[in-house]
Amino acid sequence: MIKAGIIGATGYAGGELVRILMAHKEVEIKWYGSRSYIDKKYAEVYQNMFQIVEDVCLDDNMEELAKQVDVIFTATPQGFCASMMNDDILSKVKVVDLSADYRIKDVAVYEKWYGIEHKSPQYIDEAVYGLCEINREDVKKARLVANPGCYTTCSILTAYPLVKEGLIDPDTLIIDAKSGTSGAGRGAKVPNLYCEVNENIKAYGVASHRHTPEIEEQLGYAAGKEILLNFTPHLVPMNRGILVTEYAKLNQVKKPDGSRGLPSYEDIKAVYDKYYKEEKFVRVLEKGICPETKWVEGSNYVDVNFVIDERTGRIIMMGALDNLVKGAAGQAVQNMNLMFGFKECEGLELVPMFP
Amino acid sequence: MIKAGIIGATGYAGGELVRILMAHKEVEIKWYGSRSYIDKKYAEVYQNMFQIVEDVCLDDNMEELAKQVDVIFTATPQGFCASMMNDDILSKVKVVDLSADYRIKDVAVYEKWYGIEHKSPQYIDEAVYGLCEINREDVKKARLVANPGCYTTCSILTAYPLVKEGLIDPDTLIIDAKSGTSGAGRGAKVPNLYCEVNENIKAYGVASHRHTPEIEEQLGYAAGKEILLNFTPHLVPMNRGILVTEYAKLNQVKKPDGSRGLPSYEDIKAVYDKYYKEEKFVRVLEKGICPETKWVEGSNYVDVNFVIDERTGRIIMMGALDNLVKGAAGQAVQNMNLMFGFKECEGLELVPMFP
Amino acid sequence: MIKAGIIGATGYAGGELVRILMAHKEVEIKWYGSRSYIDKKYAEVYQNMFQIVEDVCLDDNMEELAKQVDVIFTATPQGFCASMMNDDILSKVKVVDLSADYRIKDVAVYEKWYGIEHKSPQYIDEAVYGLCEINREDVKKARLVANPGCYTTCSILTAYPLVKEGLIDPDTLIIDAKSGTSGAGRGAKVPNLYCEVNENIKAYGVASHRHTPEIEEQLGYAAGKEILLNFTPHLVPMNRGILVTEYAKLNQVKKPDGSRGLPSYEDIKAVYDKYYKEEKFVRVLEKGICPETKWVEGSNYVDVNFVIDERTGRIIMMGALDNLVKGAAGQAVQNMNLMFGFKECEGLELVPMFP
Amino acid sequence: MIKAGIIGATGYAGGELVRILMAHKEVEIKWYGSRSYIDKKYAEVYQNMFQIVEDVCLDDNMEELAKQVDVIFTATPQGFCASMMNDDILSKVKVVDLSADYRIKDVAVYEKWYGIEHKSPQYIDEAVYGLCEINREDVKKARLVANPGCYTTCSILTAYPLVKEGLIDPDTLIIDAKSGTSGAGRGAKVPNLYCEVNENIKAYGVASHRHTPEIEEQLGYAAGKEILLNFTPHLVPMNRGILVTEYAKLNQVKKPDGSRGLPSYEDIKAVYDKYYKEEKFVRVLEKGICPETKWVEGSNYVDVNFVIDERTGRIIMMGALDNLVKGAAGQAVQNMNLMFGFKECEGLELVPMFP
Repeated sequence: MIKAGIIGATGYAGGELVRILMAHKEVEIKWYGSRSYIDKKYAEVYQNMFQIVEDVCLDDNMEELAKQVDVIFTATPQGFCASMMNDDILSKVKVVDLSADYRIKDVAVYEKWYGIEHKSPQYIDEAVYGLCEINREDVKKARLVANPGCYTTCSILTAYPLVKEGLIDPDTLIIDAKSGTSGAGRGAKVPNLYCEVNENIKAYGVASHRHTPEIEEQLGYAAGKEILLNFTPHLVPMNRGILVTEYAKLNQVKKPDGSRGLPSYEDIKAVYDKYYKEEKFVRVLEKGICPETKWVEGSNYVDVNFVIDERTGRIIMMGALDNLVKGAAGQAVQNMNLMFGFKECEGLELVPMFP
Repeated sequence: MIKAGIIGATGYAGGELVRILMAHKEVEIKWYGSRSYIDKKYAEVYQNMFQIVEDVCLDDNMEELAKQVDVIFTATPQGFCASMMNDDILSKVKVVDLSADYRIKDVAVYEKWYGIEHKSPQYIDEAVYGLCEINREDVKKARLVANPGCYTTCSILTAYPLVKEGLIDPDTLIIDAKSGTSGAGRGAKVPNLYCEVNENIKAYGVASHRHTPEIEEQLGYAAGKEILLNFTPHLVPMNRGILVTEYAKLNQVKKPDGSRGLPSYEDIKAVYDKYYKEEKFVRVLEKGICPETKWVEGSNYVDVNFVIDERTGRIIMMGALDNLVKGAAGQAVQNMNLMFGFKECEGLELVPMFP
Repeated sequence: MIKAGIIGATGYAGGELVRILMAHKEVEIKWYGSRSYIDKKYAEVYQNMFQIVEDVCLDDNMEELAKQVDVIFTATPQGFCASMMNDDILSKVKVVDLSADYRIKDVAVYEKWYGIEHKSPQYIDEAVYGLCEINREDVKKARLVANPGCYTTCSILTAYPLVKEGLIDPDTLIIDAKSGTSGAGRGAKVPNLYCEVNENIKAYGVASHRHTPEIEEQLGYAAGKEILLNFTPHLVPMNRGILVTEYAKLNQVKKPDGSRGLPSYEDIKAVYDKYYKEEKFVRVLEKGICPETKWVEGSNYVDVNFVIDERTGRIIMMGALDNLVKGAAGQAVQNMNLMFGFKECEGLELVPMFP
Repeated sequence: MIKAGIIGATGYAGGELVRILMAHKEVEIKWYGSRSYIDKKYAEVYQNMFQIVEDVCLDDNMEELAKQVDVIFTATPQGFCASMMNDDILSKVKVVDLSADYRIKDVAVYEKWYGIEHKSPQYIDEAVYGLCEINREDVKKARLVANPGCYTTCSILTAYPLVKEGLIDPDTLIIDAKSGTSGAGRGAKVPNLYCEVNENIKAYGVASHRHTPEIEEQLGYAAGKEILLNFTPHLVPMNRGILVTEYAKLNQVKKPDGSRGLPSYEDIKAVYDKYYKEEKFVRVLEKGICPETKWVEGSNYVDVNFVIDERTGRIIMMGALDNLVKGAAGQAVQNMNLMFGFKECEGLELVPMFP
């Protein structure tokens, strides 16, 4: 049984960490950090935890926390984790950072897209990008994991096998993403009010959303070259869920008869299976089934599938996940499991809830 | 490890049974009965179960099923279970009936409110009304359990302690209930279409809803006399959840100074605690907190609380539960746990999901 | 063509006033008052008004405004209108106050329930309670109209005929009300965030909501005596709409054969028709049809109906309206029409929008 | 005052036609055709019309109808209008067909994508594609107008100016569309149930949706050549609204200094203004504002805007409309206004409703 501390425990991702860790056999939560609710009972902030969590919220003193626990989750605004990190902390605990601070290897790119100075760039190299399905072995050895963004996880996993195997031209990649509103956080802002979001859909952050360089960097590694793509997020009137619809030009492949042509359904399916058949949390759906966010709600699954459009020579790839689970807290726990040598799916065998 | 069969596995309550039993340590599902989807893979009906359930749907042959399993759940339309029941079945398996067939002890009342003939009234006496918090000991010994209705569970548990202890006048009881739409089932009907339910609220079944006599019967046992009350259900644009708001005249009690008067907050709270303090699944909230359906979503909890209105001499009691869990599948599993001597909360320690 | 000014034009009720007045033949808006958005284009606050409203927001200087317009609508927080009112203003313009400042005749009751001092109690007597269907003639002569609350309008109109004619015992009246979220206003507060309201229902302000004394006062006039009742509001995950479900004991009436007994459906229907048959905006539905908020969305209608429960001797009355129209802006325009001698329904012949 | 008949008056588009025509000064509805509800009062099918529409539903006898009215709207399934059309009808009335029967000029394309035989191809040539902003003059002279699809209207108007002026490469055009659920119609089908749609988003009809060839044909006229594009619709949990997000490679243009490069914001804006500045119902939003479906709800507006992504050389175009108004009934009325010489915006000056 290890001890965990959460900084930012009263945000939506923090709350989901608590929900998941409550049923985790190897972890107990010792520290519910929440600058906004210090000394308040956690269950008063989230009444669903009444009679389940008895603790009160504590501050975000990461140094003190490092003495008391084995793993720290930082579910905090950009810049916080980087500003707190030091050698002493890393020598004592493992850290899973749910913010963007250590996701992007090029500090200049980080500072440009996030508009803030990085306070501890010396740890960026060490930090492992915690997309378990791709970086599993590195995660196992890591002290500091940069937990991927919600849009990012969905966007990358949906296209990764085809980029990696050169079946699509990554520079033609267009990612049209749709997210539930919990991704916007629990801050009290007019655009997130019920009446503003309900019965409405809109794009936002067009050509400027911060998850863009993160996707480009990771898919660039798969492609073996730098790539530029379009990523457009949309706000959808639902609590949870991300759906991505991705478009790319298919590259021609050598066909059985020696000619060159578009890959077939079977060609593509084989590539997805190569990467995901053994992956518990990535489900490649059966032919003709489009992923739906509701089918993964509350679980750590990513559902992916694709359709080839022979008329235009493009492939349409689709992926769905729960932004608070595989897109945040679930993936963080998956990373922790790897870091501590637990069963990778411990605490994560959550059956999606429908309806 | 016992074996379970579900008849009506592709309705919403049946689907929730599958979700819960997937994580239950003592049970495996051997039979997914669904007249509408025979031979179809269960996971094609509910894509959330892809790669989790590999079975295909079977028919609803209860006799055959009784040979193969230890417990049968019938999540079927009214009349089905009663029409199938016989001595042979009951000698082989335990049955938890999620329909209304054995809930009402007076067969004439059943036939009047449901408008159908009861096909096996000889089992009504034996059937135990499976409201575990009230009939726990009887459930433990039962072969046949009548699993309570969703509205009913919430309505009864919210008022039970005060009726039992004579603190309210049960003939003044008015229950205004609000339900999410999954309670209406998965049948394809115009009134349940998205555009008809969304952005809308309405009462229905006013003064005629079938859960009325069930509530009256059970609260009548608590009151020690027959009672008549008003019950009005409403359809709310959300998937899950039932909230009841109950109104009743408070009876006067003897006060510490010898005078008679309205009971105080502490008087009432003490009565709720007497009945529910040791009940894991009934949470009496702290003073001033109103139950919200979201705080129990996905879990087996019922949250209850009350406010005394000294101006009118009435008490307003409130209760919230997830209609598919404590209002159906969760309670059915709780009953099964009692019937088989498992830990009562096995498979039911579900942390409510928020948001 | 008269000129109108709106103070509080950027709240939801203010926005609805703008929507309605845009299509009103006798009025042009000259002043969009909004303390929060001074100098900002109104259409930047409400993009639906792009290319429809070109004006910028102004301050809330009521004295200045009184010089420039013929009618002022104050859609402002409690206390504002009372603090600004003076003889000079009332001598120049007519005022429709959408806040509660002049609704309650007993200033002590106002100050107790609202917790603020009333700054101009000298105008309370003069102010006419603007429930047009009841106080039409007084409204026509008024300089200052107190526009009723949204819950209040629905609650009163649903029960009014039966209270007035003595068919129900008003002291047994219980009003269970359900409201869409626009009633909570456009302030940025955590409880009004999308993820907190969506998929959720709760009661609030139990036994303490400020609309209670307003309902009691007005129905008390109808009853000819002071009454106390229970009023419980609930927050529903939808943008617009209020539904009330009201319960009361029926008084016995003299039957055709000379005996006494419960009134029949026809007895009750006749009473509703007596008061509402000629009322354009109150629709008494046909037997067996329950009001639904969606059927009145966007319109100035109140739909009412009732069911007699002979078992309990109670009547269940139901009413539905759009809280921003008949519950706020539409009623304000209806009052204005009466005050200025326009056709009462001018600008208000809005066909409900479905779905 | 002309007389109108509606066939398919009880579908969602038919209901919206009724709502709009109720407030139209030049039209009265004489025939509410609805095969499913013959002899039933229209207001019993749509309770919002209680006391507004007194008529009963009639059959779909188009020959008889042609004798009684001046204009027929067919809001019917594909194939119906084509199967009924004949010279006699067209000699007596003008027809606005809201189905797809006369939208596609190449009958083979129609029959392939719709999978049915076209019963009256002889009228395809005569039929005018009723996208008023593009074909206004032809509509004025038409007897038979093919009212465009909802997705189609939004998709075409959003990209039209740039395709027409050659600023984008139409073969790189990718249209990612999101629709509210009323677009799926009022048929009782499991996938359209509240609990299936709510809290969910999915793509459907990927690479095979029937609006694809309609968009390709119309934008092909603008491009002056045949084009192929990707169109992917998504189902969004809301009643109304379509949002399209369109991606295309920008063509290089000659810059003021003589060099060639990407067009600037101002270049693009000037082109949109050239086509839409005088168009009442197309609103080109201000820089940086993304269209939202809520801002056009209930109105005949299309809101469009764009963002240039200099990194990728693509433009992201966005458009939003109400699928039942500008995407169906509103556009049909706009066409009728043109055909009969009424003011084009008569009956259509509907202010969007928010929230």
